[in-house]
Amino acid sequence: MPKRTASPARKRNIPEPTIARLPRYLRSFVGFAHDHRPVISSKELAAASGINPAQVRKDLAYFGQFGQRGIGYDFKTLDAKMREILGLHKVWRIALVGAGNLGTALLQYGGFAKAGFKIEAAFDVDPSKVGWELEGVRIWATPAIRQVVREKKIEIGVLAVPASQAQRVADAMVDAGIRAILNFAPCVLTVPKSVLVRGVDLASELEHLTYFLEKSNKNEK
Amino acid sequence: MPKRTASPARKRNIPEPTIARLPRYLRSFVGFAHDHRPVISSKELAAASGINPAQVRKDLAYFGQFGQRGIGYDFKTLDAKMREILGLHKVWRIALVGAGNLGTALLQYGGFAKAGFKIEAAFDVDPSKVGWELEGVRIWATPAIRQVVREKKIEIGVLAVPASQAQRVADAMVDAGIRAILNFAPCVLTVPKSVLVRGVDLASELEHLTYFLEKSNKNEK
Repeated sequence: MPKRTASPARKRNIPEPTIARLPRYLRSFVGFAHDHRPVISSKELAAASGINPAQVRKDLAYFGQFGQRGIGYDFKTLDAKMREILGLHKVWRIALVGAGNLGTALLQYGGFAKAGFKIEAAFDVDPSKVGWELEGVRIWATPAIRQVVREKKIEIGVLAVPASQAQRVADAMVDAGIRAILNFAPCVLTVPKSVLVRGVDLASELEHLTYFLEKSNKNEK
Repeated sequence: MPKRTASPARKRNIPEPTIARLPRYLRSFVGFAHDHRPVISSKELAAASGINPAQVRKDLAYFGQFGQRGIGYDFKTLDAKMREILGLHKVWRIALVGAGNLGTALLQYGGFAKAGFKIEAAFDVDPSKVGWELEGVRIWATPAIRQVVREKKIEIGVLAVPASQAQRVADAMVDAGIRAILNFAPCVLTVPKSVLVRGVDLASELEHLTYFLEKSNKNEK
């Protein structure tokens, strides 16, 4: 069977759950790149990403025909396509608000830089932290958000403050021109329609696990 | 139109994306409970949870007919049903491995206790931390996992260690009898089929945001 040529990715039709899985595929490609292998099978990609093979094949179908039946996928092409779709061909500038334990953990988290994200500035209400650097990132007083975000052309805000302060900080971010917010506080934020918010609810993640634990407990009885 | 009686929830048929949204509904109910109102509309629930109204109606349909057309849903019944399905009628015991900044942030995170999770023990390889308490939780040496997990009947493990140590710690958790792991390390874990792993990849969350930023940037041009 001849190798099919790549068709342009149908960007507008990719469903959100597939988009949500792309980062996991990208993470898996790193391992294959080390092996200097040009082609991977959906089974290999499934094992490396922890996503089931049928789902992998379905997801990859959205990226045009990069596969050769019985051989596999040209993962460099896939990697480039997925990065383009996720907007990862550039470095995104981030403002982190909240330099407590969670904020510090996020500053130390190597995964952001590797994925093309740069925390340009951190903010905290604690005067004893302001003016210092943490992991090479300067900590500013929270009221400076507007000025610093505009000066540094920051595009994404990460909220690592208690829920009671989250909405006020989100308002300041929006006012400063930030258009996407990753929210770690366990609350729903109200923002204009043009601003994207993604919430990371840590307790929800556990509740998803207990659903499956509970189900398997019942099946054992 | 007469009020319909509740039919038993069709537990086995609820799709995973719906299950993943249940915690967000539960979080929204808290606000309604404060208002002492027995019934909420799908529109109100949508606004409070940040999920679109059509999706809310679709999701709630899996929980039998608790709705009255034009009036709304009896949210106490919904709340109880969702908690039962998520296995939240009991307190789940958790072992946290890694008492660095992320681990400390998780110990301080009020959302776990509120949702019915109790961190029973923390573990760290740093001898200067072992034996101390953090937020009322004792820190043990990592090799004590097996003994402590068995003694305290711990069911869920939370991994807050660097990626390089994650697989080794996961192996120890599995060996100790833990059947569900929440993994914050940016890596895929290999575990037996009977063990559930849910990965929280913080960079992925950002990559999901950049997809939408990139798309809206293109639409503006």
